Amino acid sequence: MGKRRRKKRIVEKISEKAGLPPGTLIHIGEDKVEKARVEIYDFFDGYCKKRVPSNIDECFKTKENSKFIWINIDGVNDVESVAKIGKHFGINDLVLEDILNTEERPHFKEFNSYCFTLLKMVKYEHSVGEMSEEQLSLIFGNNFILTFQEGLEGDVFSKLRERIESKNDISLKNDADFFAYSLIDSCVDSYFLVLEQMGLKIEDLEEETLTDPSPKTLEEIHKLKRNLILLRKSLWPLREIFTSIERSNTPLIKQNTLYYFRDIYDHSLQLLDLVETLRDILASTLDVYMSSLSNKLNQVMKFLTVISTIFIPLTFIVGIYGMNFKYIPELEWKYGYFAVMALNLIIALLMIYYFKRKKIA
Amino acid sequence: MGKRRRKKRIVEKISEKAGLPPGTLIHIGEDKVEKARVEIYDFFDGYCKKRVPSNIDECFKTKENSKFIWINIDGVNDVESVAKIGKHFGINDLVLEDILNTEERPHFKEFNSYCFTLLKMVKYEHSVGEMSEEQLSLIFGNNFILTFQEGLEGDVFSKLRERIESKNDISLKNDADFFAYSLIDSCVDSYFLVLEQMGLKIEDLEEETLTDPSPKTLEEIHKLKRNLILLRKSLWPLREIFTSIERSNTPLIKQNTLYYFRDIYDHSLQLLDLVETLRDILASTLDVYMSSLSNKLNQVMKFLTVISTIFIPLTFIVGIYGMNFKYIPELEWKYGYFAVMALNLIIALLMIYYFKRKKIA
Amino acid sequence: MGKRRRKKRIVEKISEKAGLPPGTLIHIGEDKVEKARVEIYDFFDGYCKKRVPSNIDECFKTKENSKFIWINIDGVNDVESVAKIGKHFGINDLVLEDILNTEERPHFKEFNSYCFTLLKMVKYEHSVGEMSEEQLSLIFGNNFILTFQEGLEGDVFSKLRERIESKNDISLKNDADFFAYSLIDSCVDSYFLVLEQMGLKIEDLEEETLTDPSPKTLEEIHKLKRNLILLRKSLWPLREIFTSIERSNTPLIKQNTLYYFRDIYDHSLQLLDLVETLRDILASTLDVYMSSLSNKLNQVMKFLTVISTIFIPLTFIVGIYGMNFKYIPELEWKYGYFAVMALNLIIALLMIYYFKRKKIA
Amino acid sequence: MGKRRRKKRIVEKISEKAGLPPGTLIHIGEDKVEKARVEIYDFFDGYCKKRVPSNIDECFKTKENSKFIWINIDGVNDVESVAKIGKHFGINDLVLEDILNTEERPHFKEFNSYCFTLLKMVKYEHSVGEMSEEQLSLIFGNNFILTFQEGLEGDVFSKLRERIESKNDISLKNDADFFAYSLIDSCVDSYFLVLEQMGLKIEDLEEETLTDPSPKTLEEIHKLKRNLILLRKSLWPLREIFTSIERSNTPLIKQNTLYYFRDIYDHSLQLLDLVETLRDILASTLDVYMSSLSNKLNQVMKFLTVISTIFIPLTFIVGIYGMNFKYIPELEWKYGYFAVMALNLIIALLMIYYFKRKKIA
Amino acid sequence: MGKRRRKKRIVEKISEKAGLPPGTLIHIGEDKVEKARVEIYDFFDGYCKKRVPSNIDECFKTKENSKFIWINIDGVNDVESVAKIGKHFGINDLVLEDILNTEERPHFKEFNSYCFTLLKMVKYEHSVGEMSEEQLSLIFGNNFILTFQEGLEGDVFSKLRERIESKNDISLKNDADFFAYSLIDSCVDSYFLVLEQMGLKIEDLEEETLTDPSPKTLEEIHKLKRNLILLRKSLWPLREIFTSIERSNTPLIKQNTLYYFRDIYDHSLQLLDLVETLRDILASTLDVYMSSLSNKLNQVMKFLTVISTIFIPLTFIVGIYGMNFKYIPELEWKYGYFAVMALNLIIALLMIYYFKRKKIA
Repeated sequence: MGKRRRKKRIVEKISEKAGLPPGTLIHIGEDKVEKARVEIYDFFDGYCKKRVPSNIDECFKTKENSKFIWINIDGVNDVESVAKIGKHFGINDLVLEDILNTEERPHFKEFNSYCFTLLKMVKYEHSVGEMSEEQLSLIFGNNFILTFQEGLEGDVFSKLRERIESKNDISLKNDADFFAYSLIDSCVDSYFLVLEQMGLKIEDLEEETLTDPSPKTLEEIHKLKRNLILLRKSLWPLREIFTSIERSNTPLIKQNTLYYFRDIYDHSLQLLDLVETLRDILASTLDVYMSSLSNKLNQVMKFLTVISTIFIPLTFIVGIYGMNFKYIPELEWKYGYFAVMALNLIIALLMIYYFKRKKIA
Repeated sequence: MGKRRRKKRIVEKISEKAGLPPGTLIHIGEDKVEKARVEIYDFFDGYCKKRVPSNIDECFKTKENSKFIWINIDGVNDVESVAKIGKHFGINDLVLEDILNTEERPHFKEFNSYCFTLLKMVKYEHSVGEMSEEQLSLIFGNNFILTFQEGLEGDVFSKLRERIESKNDISLKNDADFFAYSLIDSCVDSYFLVLEQMGLKIEDLEEETLTDPSPKTLEEIHKLKRNLILLRKSLWPLREIFTSIERSNTPLIKQNTLYYFRDIYDHSLQLLDLVETLRDILASTLDVYMSSLSNKLNQVMKFLTVISTIFIPLTFIVGIYGMNFKYIPELEWKYGYFAVMALNLIIALLMIYYFKRKKIA
Repeated sequence: MGKRRRKKRIVEKISEKAGLPPGTLIHIGEDKVEKARVEIYDFFDGYCKKRVPSNIDECFKTKENSKFIWINIDGVNDVESVAKIGKHFGINDLVLEDILNTEERPHFKEFNSYCFTLLKMVKYEHSVGEMSEEQLSLIFGNNFILTFQEGLEGDVFSKLRERIESKNDISLKNDADFFAYSLIDSCVDSYFLVLEQMGLKIEDLEEETLTDPSPKTLEEIHKLKRNLILLRKSLWPLREIFTSIERSNTPLIKQNTLYYFRDIYDHSLQLLDLVETLRDILASTLDVYMSSLSNKLNQVMKFLTVISTIFIPLTFIVGIYGMNFKYIPELEWKYGYFAVMALNLIIALLMIYYFKRKKIA
Repeated sequence: MGKRRRKKRIVEKISEKAGLPPGTLIHIGEDKVEKARVEIYDFFDGYCKKRVPSNIDECFKTKENSKFIWINIDGVNDVESVAKIGKHFGINDLVLEDILNTEERPHFKEFNSYCFTLLKMVKYEHSVGEMSEEQLSLIFGNNFILTFQEGLEGDVFSKLRERIESKNDISLKNDADFFAYSLIDSCVDSYFLVLEQMGLKIEDLEEETLTDPSPKTLEEIHKLKRNLILLRKSLWPLREIFTSIERSNTPLIKQNTLYYFRDIYDHSLQLLDLVETLRDILASTLDVYMSSLSNKLNQVMKFLTVISTIFIPLTFIVGIYGMNFKYIPELEWKYGYFAVMALNLIIALLMIYYFKRKKIA
Repeated sequence: MGKRRRKKRIVEKISEKAGLPPGTLIHIGEDKVEKARVEIYDFFDGYCKKRVPSNIDECFKTKENSKFIWINIDGVNDVESVAKIGKHFGINDLVLEDILNTEERPHFKEFNSYCFTLLKMVKYEHSVGEMSEEQLSLIFGNNFILTFQEGLEGDVFSKLRERIESKNDISLKNDADFFAYSLIDSCVDSYFLVLEQMGLKIEDLEEETLTDPSPKTLEEIHKLKRNLILLRKSLWPLREIFTSIERSNTPLIKQNTLYYFRDIYDHSLQLLDLVETLRDILASTLDVYMSSLSNKLNQVMKFLTVISTIFIPLTFIVGIYGMNFKYIPELEWKYGYFAVMALNLIIALLMIYYFKRKKIA
């Protein structure tokens, strides 16, 4: 079982890393206890087979006739296993350092015998309205693909696994570079799912703001805004990755696969458009919220003003005839009381007429 | 009959698509029931003829002497027909996938034997103040043009159809690439019409905000802002399309036609300018709205303040002489009552004078 | 006599144009009734002569020894005349279409035998605070210059006309390209005049906002902001025009004239700087306006609070001794009344002291 | 004696210039009365000598053995002198026109025998909080440097003059291009001094806003913002000047001097950073100001609310027992009065307790 | 002992510098009294040795077999020592001037025999919430590294020192350029630590704003915003430094080291992303703060309105029956008093019902 996902921080803990020599293999992130879970897929022509190795060394045994092998390591806090695998496949120490540091910025680097790309898998927990991220490091060479996950529960590959296991995926007809593309594609799709959820949330908030804005609405708007800001932060480097892939002329990526990568590049642009669009609409929603508050205050104040300005003069008038002066001529009149009441009525009606005309009430 | 248009969502449903293998032909979007409506125009030298095929295979029969054929398929949810047509004209699977997915980002791609461009046709329903979008996929080769629409009621080609049917259009004297340009031009014109409507709406809102701002005004401003944000999202990629067309050196587009495309490129810039201009003016209108609310609150509060501060002291004074103390000398005075009333009058007048001088009332 | 200028719309009517075949000569804009007014200047070495032709064909007769001819057509709604002139000078149909459509975006295009540039002449009516625009299309070849105006009253060439008529202008010593530059220069100068007027208006508004902000001020700020937004929209393409001219290597523009064009390019940058500067200062002015409103509200509320909180407790006290209980000991005291009055005075003074210390009043 | 500095306008008067033929030598700006003050420095190897010519022709007499001459003309309204000097040194008419027009945008132009750069010298009068600008035109050739100032009191060269007169400056060991650099450097330094003053002013305003915001503070914030906007407007072209100088490969600037110019380029970037930083902090200060106003209003309203809601019900209660009904049983009770007073006290205490708990008071 | 850190100013004092000849060695900054502290590390193959020289000349004695020497000079106000060291290593005067001026903008310059880079070391004092900066100038050649610090207490190299002293750092296996990289890396890490602290502070402020916003919160938000603006100002040039290093093809930096520098370049991008993200979230927090104030005001005003509008009419009613008219029929009724009290109750209940329905209370 994987670890529970935690709330996304604004700035991740980097202090542990600072002050270490470059190339030191040390895990940066939370919860360093568990052992990595490893699963292996051997890809043959048109089908693939899964196996779960009992120890790390089993990973290095390749099956006969297999086109390539996919090793998925779940739990980068198991530094020892990661180092062993890295050594076997001849991975540069600086790359391994990036894999272990789960606060790394997404990027792509090409080497002679392999390419390395670091991505984030995102999730949006609708119930709490919080986004969570998990780092995915992907290395692919001519006949191997390595993926390293942080070890949190679940990943974005479940549908891809189903498809390759049921022999229903074109990546089975292609090579390692194409399967690497399929994995990255699944990763990028996770952003679309998160944005779709956020889009729905914004539509709810727009509705709420126009009909019944409350301090709770404000809090939700702020939370969503924050999540969009954090999402954008991880989308910026995503686009750069696909630009780098297109520009690289590594022989490890075939022409046909490059065409597919161009497709993901378009998707990454679409994602950035979407985030900007959501941010703009959310900003507009906040403006509406602020205006709604002002509108409400105006209404309350108008009501107070109407009631006060009608009754305050009347209270003054009745106060006059409550005075105990010896000689107040009106008090002696027979219909004085009724006259005053009539006067009050007239004043009140005039006031109401005035308010109506001035559109205050 | 086509489908009814629906309200534009902020983020379209993408979840159905996520997790599918690339190149899978599946319709992404709403309402997958109907059969595609197909219409065919055979273009001859100087005139054209329309026919409605009874089945898909009829599309593939070309008329003798015809320069090129335009097949308009309305209803991309009819996956089978789309696939059949695609196969006949040798269209790449990834392209067909884009055609079927009605949430695709506008883009242009050139291939050896055809060019593919994906556009959005926009409409603004003035009555509800909502914008709606329909995807248009356009493929043109040397002697064929294919257009795929989502299948909603109406399209942007009615005036173009009228012109070619009445033999009154220069595209009749040109080849397939020029007619493709004419179709795209009609599509871009639909943006101008939407922006013109929005411009009128903004002028109404400006007027309303200055004279009689209400919560309804605020809602309208927000709705328009939202529509402008969504419109801009579909305009950004539009410009890129025309840049790509200019840069491509496909032999499928002739030099003369390129000149016309440069014209649309200018129009796409003009559209972006317009959207930015409308957004800026709308933002200014919202500022005015907020200030108007404050102005109104100020007026109401001034009114309350004037009435209150005049009558509260007076009420206190008449309260004094309502006290039941045994010995209050003024009460015994013959003209005490009149003196107090005169005092009240003087105080009230002084207050009013004070307010006038301080410009509060 | 020309037409009256009309208020500038945010988005001009484009719907008439949409749906027409490209290259159709039809006037887009308002008021299609009048006949074009034409004036002709024949340029000789060091002087020029003006004549007003009685019919269009007279335009095509050139004077002997003349270096070049300037034909100024005022009133593009006279489609027939424009078409005739266009045909005579061999102007492309798409160019003529642009000339007739008075809602075109400013741009520059070079052809083999002529260059075409479309500009806007701007005016700021100080009295109403509204900006108006008139389209100017300018075509120049080796020995002719054509200018097409919308036909509104007045243009920006009056000072240039004075100078050439009084033989006091260096363009008389130069060729057609230089005179084209002089015309464009006059056009760009019109922007400076508008911005100068707007700058003065902003200074007035700043003053008004700080001393006596009113809803009228707000309306003026909004109107000016709107005009600046529309001005900027027509300035963006202006800069592109001069970049295009510099990059073009048409033999129609001589090296010496290019140097002068570089000068206008600098001016167009200066204009953009100015618009941004004015916008920023206006934005700041609006902030001040909003804050001023808040300040005023604060003052009014403080005043109300001071008066209310002083008199409300006092009214309560005198209310107590207005009660009709049989046994209220204080009522029997000889100096009860005076004691209560003294108490009131003390409370009032304490309150005032409290307010002073808290800086509320 | 120079002219008094005047307040900086947002948009300078350009209308006088508009409508003049290009290359006309006419002074644009204010106060066209005085005669230009001229001072001349003859630079020899390691030292320099100053002289004040009695008439313009004296300027053209160069000293034997002198490396180069610096002629400083203070007062460009003296058109005749400027024209004379320009003619002697072979300066282009368009350049002279720029020199005379004191509203020109800063720029750099290279010619065969000289380079021309137009700059602004800035000053911040701390007492009035206003920035003032003076135009500096600098022309340098192989053996001469000309500087033209508007003729206002003082300039930015006083320290440089001191240094060269006391033989304590490396420019004495270098050529004309290096001394031109020294002059420009002094000019750029004047921006740093202005920004330093503005930085101090902002710190004062921040303090004031947090402790005791007043309408005066708002006015000061606006004034500073306006000055920063105007300063930025003159800084944008400054950067372009140094880019142009670096890119130019005029033989007039030696390699070694270019290195120093690169240094000023860095300074111009630093200046732009500073202006942006100051603007951001000032914007934040305005936000704080607005929030402070709201905070204050909240406090005042809370106070009013507390006082009102305590005394209004009490006043009602004592009003009840002021009624003159024949039969009000409580009035007959012996301790009725005391009971009511106790009731009032209890109600008041409950209210206060409620406010305390709700954190309203 | 080093100097105490001081609060970061918005604009540092530059006035002392202005007016000095370029290349003058004078210290710009504060506190010019102390003597520089110098420490020397001699690097051998695999280990290094530290020594503290008793005088400056000792610095120039290199150990046999040493690969390179690192001289760390703490206290650039000791102009004499800096000049001596500079002269010994052949450092350009303009570079020395930059070292002495502690207000310089970060930049990188390459020379024939050495590279020079100027950086800022940052610190965030959590207790006071203030950021402080210290300038670091780093010069490295083939066999020497010089670092110059301002002389404040502490630096960012303590962890690096520990590592090299305990022979636990890969820089011991590399040359001077790699150690220079290690020093710069430590410097960049200091930015991460500051941002981490600021991230935590923002999370606190977000919490505080949503639950209990006070004027203190506002002040903290402003202070943090200001620090972020200043931090961004020093981050912009940081990115340029690493771009310059990558582009330079100085032989002083080996290919392998360049790879590591590319890593820091990525970090500098990440830092800029982080600062923008923090700024965006802080801006959103301020919006929430403003809205919270409005919400609170609304609540207070609603409360006042409810209490006032209930009791004001009631007070009027009891006032009526406090009038002393001879003939008020109701006063004679036996149950008049009770009827009025019941009427009051009914009015109060109706009012409360009305408020509930209108959601005002």
